[in-house]
Amino acid sequence: MLRIHSLGGAKKIMTNEGQAAGLQQSQSCVVQIGTEQVQVSKQEQLYEGKAKRIYKTTHPELYWVVYKDDATAFNGEKKAQVSNKGMLNNLISTIFFEQLAQAGVKNHFVQAISDREQIVRQVSIIPVEVVVRNIAAGSMAKRLGIEEGQPLAHPVLEFYYKDDALGDPLINDDHVYMLQLANEQQISTMKELALQVNSILVPFLLDKKITLVDFKLEFGVGQDGNVILADEISPDTCRFWDSETQEKLDKDRFRRDLGGVEEAYQEILQRLGGQQHV
Amino acid sequence: MLRIHSLGGAKKIMTNEGQAAGLQQSQSCVVQIGTEQVQVSKQEQLYEGKAKRIYKTTHPELYWVVYKDDATAFNGEKKAQVSNKGMLNNLISTIFFEQLAQAGVKNHFVQAISDREQIVRQVSIIPVEVVVRNIAAGSMAKRLGIEEGQPLAHPVLEFYYKDDALGDPLINDDHVYMLQLANEQQISTMKELALQVNSILVPFLLDKKITLVDFKLEFGVGQDGNVILADEISPDTCRFWDSETQEKLDKDRFRRDLGGVEEAYQEILQRLGGQQHV
Repeated sequence: MLRIHSLGGAKKIMTNEGQAAGLQQSQSCVVQIGTEQVQVSKQEQLYEGKAKRIYKTTHPELYWVVYKDDATAFNGEKKAQVSNKGMLNNLISTIFFEQLAQAGVKNHFVQAISDREQIVRQVSIIPVEVVVRNIAAGSMAKRLGIEEGQPLAHPVLEFYYKDDALGDPLINDDHVYMLQLANEQQISTMKELALQVNSILVPFLLDKKITLVDFKLEFGVGQDGNVILADEISPDTCRFWDSETQEKLDKDRFRRDLGGVEEAYQEILQRLGGQQHV
Repeated sequence: MLRIHSLGGAKKIMTNEGQAAGLQQSQSCVVQIGTEQVQVSKQEQLYEGKAKRIYKTTHPELYWVVYKDDATAFNGEKKAQVSNKGMLNNLISTIFFEQLAQAGVKNHFVQAISDREQIVRQVSIIPVEVVVRNIAAGSMAKRLGIEEGQPLAHPVLEFYYKDDALGDPLINDDHVYMLQLANEQQISTMKELALQVNSILVPFLLDKKITLVDFKLEFGVGQDGNVILADEISPDTCRFWDSETQEKLDKDRFRRDLGGVEEAYQEILQRLGGQQHV
């Protein structure tokens, strides 16, 4: 049984201030960095994305992330609130990032500090969404005329240019260079890490009767110049199918109006051994 | 001065039969294959594309190609006839393929046998359109939010899945493998040849005050299993800009309703040292 308080050894040392979406959020916490315990206070908001808000902190190498309940699809054209989504994604992503860290995949995750908050390392996000696919689904199935559900003989890796105004278009390596989004070494690292994440998560999930159909990763350049895994890994960014029934347990329930969005995310959390707190 | 009769040493040995678009077409000819002169007769039509008709011949390794005056754009949504386009493209493509053959780029071209006909080697076309870009224009400029006319620091190579029903979508190497369109060796050869063609044609054209903005190539697998350059190279498949005025001398005049389509193609032929016969 996984509980927030045991996720990363976080201790709330100040009062929980501020009410967002009816949930308490803290303003300060202590996190473990290596052997050191560091006190971190939330500062001004740096960025608000579709699913998360990122804040600066008093620590020069750390960001404070708040997961929101906002659900969006089709480049923001479809919008709604999904109860507890922020909490569920925070908990689910925490499990994945801890699992990946244990397997040696360097990533930005430091510690979950509340139901919907986590502390991460500061990185400069590379504006390339890296998608790995094991089974044809979604945009690729449609674009290439392949039936959804067709298993792929080898994982298919795709880059998308992270640009809302352009609708996140598919790009190739040459486009990445041309747009100066990443250099050759960084592209190579992103590809390698993405396939490594896939080979770790596929069996991890299958053991929980979840088929990892495809997923999107984002990478960032840390202050030491190295490329590490960033963003989140959750039902917002992955396609998870029940391995036996092929039931969709991810954001496609929202995109395709299938209902039971929150329940699907809860099911994923539960199968991963996590537990929510409301 | 380049004349059809001197293009490849073709001799018409039978009467010109059949009238297509008011132009005489032959039914039989003699072509030079290595040191041998071979008589070739046109047989049944194998395929009719947007711009060409391909016929089988009495020779097991040769096809007979007839260039049409049909102009299409936007995946066939826009259609028209452009007077003499078939002839102009036949003559222009002949010059490019002869130039490339001289520079060592193996290709399917054998011989022009009339104003709008040529004999080519039989290949099995790989359904991947290979695009090389030197300057941002067209679909890439639009997709990636780049101003048309911006020079690219390095040539950008793109693959498109040749599938009208899907609108020829952009694909990456992994998609090529997944769709089993080509193997790794073939992809590597296509990329290498495409960049080689670019490095040959850019200076060749610049010498004629033509800027090679971008172009599309198709490749085929010959009967010996080797990948060779196929299809055509013409103002239908390239963007040619006047090097001084940046005036468009290609199919964009048709796509964008700029007028003077035939005149632009004639200008290209003339600058290449060719001459039409009507």
